[in-house]
Amino acid sequence: LHPFDADTRLEQTGADAYKTELSNRWSRLGGGPLGGYSLAVCIRALEAEVPHPDALSVSATFMRQAMVGSAEVSTSKIRVGSRFSTAQASLLQNEKELLRVVATFTDFDKLEGRTLMFNEAPPPSPPESAFEPFADDRGPLVDIADRIDYRTTEPVGWYSGRPAGKHEASFWMRFREERPHDAAALAFFCDAAAPIVLELGAIDSRTLDLGVHLRARAASGWLACRVCTRHVIGSFHEEDFEIWDSSGALVAQSRQLALLAGI
Amino acid sequence: LHPFDADTRLEQTGADAYKTELSNRWSRLGGGPLGGYSLAVCIRALEAEVPHPDALSVSATFMRQAMVGSAEVSTSKIRVGSRFSTAQASLLQNEKELLRVVATFTDFDKLEGRTLMFNEAPPPSPPESAFEPFADDRGPLVDIADRIDYRTTEPVGWYSGRPAGKHEASFWMRFREERPHDAAALAFFCDAAAPIVLELGAIDSRTLDLGVHLRARAASGWLACRVCTRHVIGSFHEEDFEIWDSSGALVAQSRQLALLAGI
Repeated sequence: LHPFDADTRLEQTGADAYKTELSNRWSRLGGGPLGGYSLAVCIRALEAEVPHPDALSVSATFMRQAMVGSAEVSTSKIRVGSRFSTAQASLLQNEKELLRVVATFTDFDKLEGRTLMFNEAPPPSPPESAFEPFADDRGPLVDIADRIDYRTTEPVGWYSGRPAGKHEASFWMRFREERPHDAAALAFFCDAAAPIVLELGAIDSRTLDLGVHLRARAASGWLACRVCTRHVIGSFHEEDFEIWDSSGALVAQSRQLALLAGI
Repeated sequence: LHPFDADTRLEQTGADAYKTELSNRWSRLGGGPLGGYSLAVCIRALEAEVPHPDALSVSATFMRQAMVGSAEVSTSKIRVGSRFSTAQASLLQNEKELLRVVATFTDFDKLEGRTLMFNEAPPPSPPESAFEPFADDRGPLVDIADRIDYRTTEPVGWYSGRPAGKHEASFWMRFREERPHDAAALAFFCDAAAPIVLELGAIDSRTLDLGVHLRARAASGWLACRVCTRHVIGSFHEEDFEIWDSSGALVAQSRQLALLAGI
């Protein structure tokens, strides 16, 4: 079993109730499971709740930091229609809710209409000059860098203690061990890179909400990613994230609002 | 009473239960109450639920089109902490849920940290050359154009049957009758302009989700707005919206995913 599947596996304990084990293999910089990993677990549970195959819109609100260990997921249908279905999931530990997710599903086989793009696709795979910035001395990123192959063409300044002063970046990611880029994986990847505000001197960033729009089913191979923060205002910043697959299609787009420390 | 206050007024009918009357004064292009108007009603109810004064993050998922007439709102607390509180609201008509909102509140008086902006503020008020595009022959916009003063410096192509082919626009909005720009009003304004995809030839756009980030308390006066859609993919498009107040501060930022017709 792929580690991402092993670590998002759910055991049903009742109608709309599951238990799971949050592992230490998908940790955030400040320690503890990444928000996007907790979200992936919830997407798994939601997929079991609705008849439509494709998550389209996923709105996650984070209340508490998850911890490694057992957790419960409860789900409920909100509406099942012919074209869309909407359901909710809550992730709990010790009977306290960590994360609430409302998601709408559809069937991407039924997409129709023109595609109009006003945003240039990034290069679909890393150029020769790209490198693994966390290959040696991974420090606090050891858990996740063991699992994700991350490539960039520019040095990661904050990682060597010299924030680069930039608010946007492009890079590539993929699981080290290949696995389909389904909605759970894409939502995870939207939150899997270190926040770009670290390049502005922040020392941490805590996700308050994360909205993910899945735009197409993703091909295998590299995921070309772009991240951008345009506004840091009084402790809060948004972070926009785009993921393009190896065929050059935009497959996920997310925005999060996060609380930062250190600026 | 300001019409926006009259039309978002709630009557408490029980613990965490309200009734309201959705008016015909804030209608969308295709008819029926605007999504942002329904959302404003829910924000009102959420404000009564939580101790923190300022909505910070509002995630709305739309399941059904609201109709003019009576509606119910039910709310529930999710978490009340020292710095943030999170609650949920549902809007129902005829016992069917139209809209679910999860929102996190904080206290903007306690904001601290630097402000770093990587996005240019638009002109805070309309220049001399700006005009009211819907001043005459408002057609389907009559309800809302009676309530909102909308100014632009560029012709609105779709309105005269000649879509301009553009995917972004800047303009100014305010209530015709002045009223504070609180979170409910800002969330409403994020959805109050005609979708920019109409300039790409779409004939309608139906909001599936709307995430609003409130970034500061807003000054009175004009609201400078920017809208942008970068990706229309197989019937779906995102729409990003920014609202800047008359002091030049970014006060709200939203993204919605919508289903379009006609392209």
